[in-house]
Order: sequence, then structure tokens, then C-alpha cells
Amino acid sequence: MNKYIKPERKIWSELVKRPVLQREKLTELIIDIFNEVQKNGDKALIEFNKKFDKTELKNINISDEEMQNAEKQISNELKKAILDAKENITKFHASQIPEIQKIETTKGVVCWRENRAIERIGIYIPGGTAPLFSTVLMLAVPAQLAGCKEIILCTPPDKNGNINAAILYTAKLCGVTKIFKTGGAQAVAAMTLGTESIPNVYKIFGPGNQYVVAAKEFAQKYNVAIDMPAGPSEVLVIADEQAIPEFCAADLLSQAEHGSDSQVVFISTDEKVFSQTIEETEKQLKKLPRNEMAKKSLENSHFILLRTIDEALEFSNLYAPEHLILAIKDYEKYIPKIQNAGSVFLGNYSCESAGDYASGTNHTLPTNGFAKNYSGVSLDSFVKKITFQNISEQGIKNLGKTIEIMAEAESLSAHKNAVSVRLNNIK
Amino acid sequence: MNKYIKPERKIWSELVKRPVLQREKLTELIIDIFNEVQKNGDKALIEFNKKFDKTELKNINISDEEMQNAEKQISNELKKAILDAKENITKFHASQIPEIQKIETTKGVVCWRENRAIERIGIYIPGGTAPLFSTVLMLAVPAQLAGCKEIILCTPPDKNGNINAAILYTAKLCGVTKIFKTGGAQAVAAMTLGTESIPNVYKIFGPGNQYVVAAKEFAQKYNVAIDMPAGPSEVLVIADEQAIPEFCAADLLSQAEHGSDSQVVFISTDEKVFSQTIEETEKQLKKLPRNEMAKKSLENSHFILLRTIDEALEFSNLYAPEHLILAIKDYEKYIPKIQNAGSVFLGNYSCESAGDYASGTNHTLPTNGFAKNYSGVSLDSFVKKITFQNISEQGIKNLGKTIEIMAEAESLSAHKNAVSVRLNNIK
Repeated sequence: MNKYIKPERKIWSELVKRPVLQREKLTELIIDIFNEVQKNGDKALIEFNKKFDKTELKNINISDEEMQNAEKQISNELKKAILDAKENITKFHASQIPEIQKIETTKGVVCWRENRAIERIGIYIPGGTAPLFSTVLMLAVPAQLAGCKEIILCTPPDKNGNINAAILYTAKLCGVTKIFKTGGAQAVAAMTLGTESIPNVYKIFGPGNQYVVAAKEFAQKYNVAIDMPAGPSEVLVIADEQAIPEFCAADLLSQAEHGSDSQVVFISTDEKVFSQTIEETEKQLKKLPRNEMAKKSLENSHFILLRTIDEALEFSNLYAPEHLILAIKDYEKYIPKIQNAGSVFLGNYSCESAGDYASGTNHTLPTNGFAKNYSGVSLDSFVKKITFQNISEQGIKNLGKTIEIMAEAESLSAHKNAVSVRLNNIK
Repeated sequence: MNKYIKPERKIWSELVKRPVLQREKLTELIIDIFNEVQKNGDKALIEFNKKFDKTELKNINISDEEMQNAEKQISNELKKAILDAKENITKFHASQIPEIQKIETTKGVVCWRENRAIERIGIYIPGGTAPLFSTVLMLAVPAQLAGCKEIILCTPPDKNGNINAAILYTAKLCGVTKIFKTGGAQAVAAMTLGTESIPNVYKIFGPGNQYVVAAKEFAQKYNVAIDMPAGPSEVLVIADEQAIPEFCAADLLSQAEHGSDSQVVFISTDEKVFSQTIEETEKQLKKLPRNEMAKKSLENSHFILLRTIDEALEFSNLYAPEHLILAIKDYEKYIPKIQNAGSVFLGNYSCESAGDYASGTNHTLPTNGFAKNYSGVSLDSFVKKITFQNISEQGIKNLGKTIEIMAEAESLSAHKNAVSVRLNNIK
């Protein structure tokens, strides 16, 4: 835990720095995996299952029986929670479907945009101890709303060759068309190149370890798009005198438990809230069942006392956090000053967990300072916006001269001629 | 010119292939250029001017005098054309500014998105014989509308150390904040890393040769975003019996004149229009003042006779053209069937030149099949969409249990606790 009391502005640029990730060395390994998948397809994936997931599978598909069992294994309580979350996520992402707006820019010249779904998309869901069915919701719900024809999901099997039941249940619920038991860089390679079982896709979404991240980056060389560049998850909490230290501490810890490289930043303008939040964080940490990760992550965290909320927001904009919590009064007033952030949580009752699971916003957000130049995942991430134009005889008469003059000035005479032949024809 | 009469479907996958670009070998050169710019800043750029642009400059800035002279050098006719185009581009892109739409997903849980401009963006404009002031319009107009604080433009000087007057005039008109005389990979490196004169930016836009394309790709390693991956420009024209061969030929040639690697595809369902368009293309080609490029590009072009418009659109969706012209009757009816395209031109009077210059749509579009997974440049390209949520006491009471159950099922107890502390506090 690093404490800074009213730090001078000249050290801010140090405080907003993220840990540098070493990724260069992975490239050769990733190339090998892509080559292996390209050469041997499904067979390569089964070999990788043996090597990395310590399980021997005959094939990478999910049987009908497995799907049915999954549904039975989940409690009704969890099913209801998933359904409630799905409803909220659907409501919010459905509101992002735009109405077609036809604009007559010049009399007789009508322009507009229409959404078209990306036809085939791939979702990667990591394995491990935390079965991220919430990420299935966050990616499959907007994919289905957008109208993606094929929604492929890859996730690694456990040692017994199984996939977590909640992941299977949620995938089916949200219209995932095919699920495969394969993980890591090889899953990304398979969705990029296609195998006998797995169709190649046009865009790959989802979180993962450094191998998955490197593989997604590499996939772009094969003209596949990805959701966004990745980095460790982060939260920045700004708290004034009316903030509740118990809540702030809980929010910081919920970020810290994601992993030892999670970034946690706490800023307060109030000395009492500042010191009480530190105390509360230490107190709550002890009560967490598995607190090793949170403990490590907190070691690198920053607790900063600043003078004003304006100053705090200035720092936040420089940091560009994935999650920004404004535990302040009059938060409405400060919204226009937020420049760089992935998702913002307003007031004492808007905890990050709400956005992580069920409020309706997407939890796939820009990390690592990417909130300066990237948006989080939304319905837009699953569509292309195609522009259309319809120019009438009158329209080209009105606009033709302008185009001719500009084309000529750019020395593009065939561009000019495409207008001239039309104008001549009308005369 | 390659002619195909009702080709079998099994060869379509060959016909939609783009020429493979060799880019691997450039990496070392690009790394050297980035290192040189990082080490020597402006001085490196001046050296590169000497080496690549054959001009000796004292500095890379534009003087006030140069800006004033630029305005004098441009005819009033061209000024008016640029202003008219700007007005249309502004109208269309302003219509893309969304209204904030607050969605109550659960009683007491309100979610919405707000646009925030990317603070600093960079525009690259190539030099050479065609001064692309139209691309300045296409990139600076939406950047200014979005509210980008710094709009940096880099473009290479000519042998006399000058920048084309129309580029300077348009840049000033559209709110470009700083213009620099530097081109090629080194300009991209400068906008990525920053120099004494050039601020580093968060996103780089604009076309360029293979060095610029490779440098933009490389810039992403420094967390800079780019507009989209690049490839040679393309048009696909679909014409039925009512199409006018003279217009179709002019459209094909306007694409072909872009460069010898331009892609031109013509599909007709009518034998007469098919053969007449081929004749017209050859006839018009001869009349073009500088037809070498167009001639070369046409050598690789495809003229395809198909049976139906549905079949033509199926081919087009597989090809995913940057520009798609529907010179057919009843084009309205076929719009829903268009799945993959950058920009679509409807009817006999909607020529590609209109969208290239002045109708209002953006001409920075996905090429090389990227229309399957990328949109063209729009206002969205210059903003991040930040999600907000405001959860009241009642809201967390309504949603809390759902979050707790999901967090527990993902074994994330601190996520659960962030809700529990709030629910306990309310009781």
C-alpha cells in the first residue's frame, strides 16, 4: 500500500504508470501454436488439451447430454440471477440499436448508415477457478442482439474433460451457436484459422492470460479483428467527506481480488475518509476467504490524498481508469469533467460489482490507459455501420460541379469524368 | 481484364481473393525509423526530409506567411467547392452525435453512455502528385465535431519544402491545430512518440504507402490506436439491364486510376450491359490523360456475368467491397441483403466520386475484405463511449441479491461483499 499525501503534480506521471508487461518473448511460442493448429486442426487441439489442460478427450465438442446435465447442475437461485442479469444487459444493449436516420445533405442527396452484424464472432472464456459465466452474458447477449449468425465459444476443459455448468447454461441461454473444449492460444488460433470442427471467425472477444492476449494480437495478422487490447483490471475510487469508508474498502478489495497485477487507486479529499478507508481495507482483507491475490495487488496500490475533487478528476483523466467510482456528493456536476474512463459508477450505492454482473452495462472495458482511445464493448462492437447514399438526377445536378472541381484539383480526372458523363446525360 | 461468364460457385472463393501484400520485410526498417525519431526528435525528421523528400528544411513547422499564401493560391471556385463539401460532411457526421439515453434497467438502476472526444489525434496525409485535401476534410471535420482538443496533421513537403496550398487551406478551415512538414513512417513515429514540436497522439488516421501502413501497425505496440487496417482501394459495381454502360465504365475507371493495385469488379445480370460496359471502359480509358495506372489496375480486374441480382449480392457479400454501386432498379428491395460493404451507392446517379468528395459520407472505408469486420470512419472513430450508472438505495436493494449470487458462483467473494456491506447498511 503506497500512501501519498497531496503529492506534487510533477510526480503524477509516475503515479499513473502501469506495470510494464513483457510480451515479446511469447511471439515464437504463439507462431508455433498457430502453425500446429493450421497443420493438424482438431487433432492439434486435442494434443494441446493433453499437454496444457491435463485431460484426454476424444473430441472437443459438447454432447447433448453434457448440455442437459449442465442445466440440472445449476441451482434455481443461480438460474434466476443469470436470467435477471440477462434481462438488464439486454435492455441496455438493445437501447444501443440506432434508428436509421436519413440525412438530405444537399437537395436530392440522401445519406444514412445501417448496422449489419459481423457474421461470425468468437468468444473466449478462460478456465481456472473462477468460471466466468458473467463474461458469456456480456459478450453473447449483444452478439445475439446484433444478429451475429454464428457465435462460437471456446473455453478450456478441466482435468476431467468437463466445462463448468454455469458457462454451458449461460451460453445456451444467450444463443451461443457452438461451444468447444479448447483454451489458451490454441483456441484463438482455431477461431482465427478454422479447423474441421471450429469455423474461422471475423472477430474475437474475451479475456485471457498472457498467452491468450498475445494470440489475439497475433490473430490480427490474419485479418481477424479483436475486441480491444488488454491489460490488468483496474479501479479508481474518488471519495469526499460523505463517502462511506466501509463501502470504498469493499470496492477496492473487489478489484484487488481479480489478480495480483490488478490496479487499485484510492483518492480522497477528506483526511478522515482517507485514513478510515485504509483501516477498513486492512480489516476487510483479513476476512476474505482467499486473500492472497488481493494482498499482493494491494501492495502495489496507491492511496492518495488530494485537495479538491477537480484535482482528483484531473488525476483520474491522466490515469484513465477502466472503472471509476465517484463516491462524492454532487457527482452530477462533475460528469462533464470526466474525460478518460471505461465505466463510471456514481454515488455510494453504485458499486463496481453491479456493473460487473447485472446492472446492464458491459464489463468488457479498456484497461491499461486504453480508456484514452478505446470504448468498452457495446452493441457497436458486433456490427459494422455501412453508409448508404441515394443521389437523384436533381442531386447530381446540384452537387456535380463541386465534385468536378475537387477531383480536378486532386488530379483525379476519371473521378471527375464519372460525374461529367452523368451531367452530360441529363442535359 | 478477366471475363467470367456465369462462373461456378466453387471458383468464387478464388475470384474474391485480394493480392497478397508482402509487408514482413519492412519491420526492421520501421523499428530503425522509430528508434531514430525517439532518439533525435525533430532533428531526425529534418534528416529524413533530406533523405526521402529531397528537401532541406530548417524546421518542420508551417509559418504564418505560408498559411496566408496558401489561401491566396487557391481559386475562389475551389474554395467554394471545399466549403460546400465541408457543409455536407458536417451535416452527415453531426447527425451521428447521439442523444444521451438514460435506461432504467431495474427500478433504481439507471445506465447510459456519453461520448468523450479522444483528446489528441493525428492525421496523416500523403504527398505525391495527388494532394489529398479531400482526406483532410474527411478526417478533420469529424474530429472537430467530436471535440478533439488537438488535431495534428503531418504531410511530406515537396522538393522545395512546401506543402500543397489546398491541404493547408482545408486544414485551417477544419480546425487542424498543428501542421508539420514530415511524411512517411517517420511522421507516424513522431505522432506516436512525440518530438520537441509534435505532440504524441492517442489515435492516428489516414492513408499512406506501405511504409506508412506498416508504421501505423507498429505504432499500436506503443498503445496508440489506428483508424483501421489498410489495403488497396476497391469498387464492385452491380448492373442490371437498366444500368447505363457509360456510367458504369466511368465508375470503374475512377477506381482504377487510384493505383495499379486498385481492385475493380464489375458484375452484370444483362449480357448487353455486360459487353457494352467492357467496350465503354476501353473507350474511356484511351481518353484519360494519365491512364497508365488505370490500365494496369484494369488488367487485374474482374468482369463477371451472373444470373440474378441475388446471386450478384451473394458474390458481393463474399468479396466485401469497400465501395458497392448498385446500378439496378428496385435497389431499395435489395438493401437488406447487403451484408458486407464499406459504403453503398444506390441507382444510376450515385457515383463513387460523390462519396469520395462531397455528398457527406466518409471516404475512409474498410478495404481488403475488412468490410466483414470493420466500419468506415465516422464520428464514432473520434470518441470513446463511456458508460455511466447511478444506483439508488432502492436500486441496490432490488439488484443486490442477484449480484451476490452471481459473484458467489464465480468464487469472487470480495465482489459479493461490496454488495453485502451496502445491503447491511441499508437495513
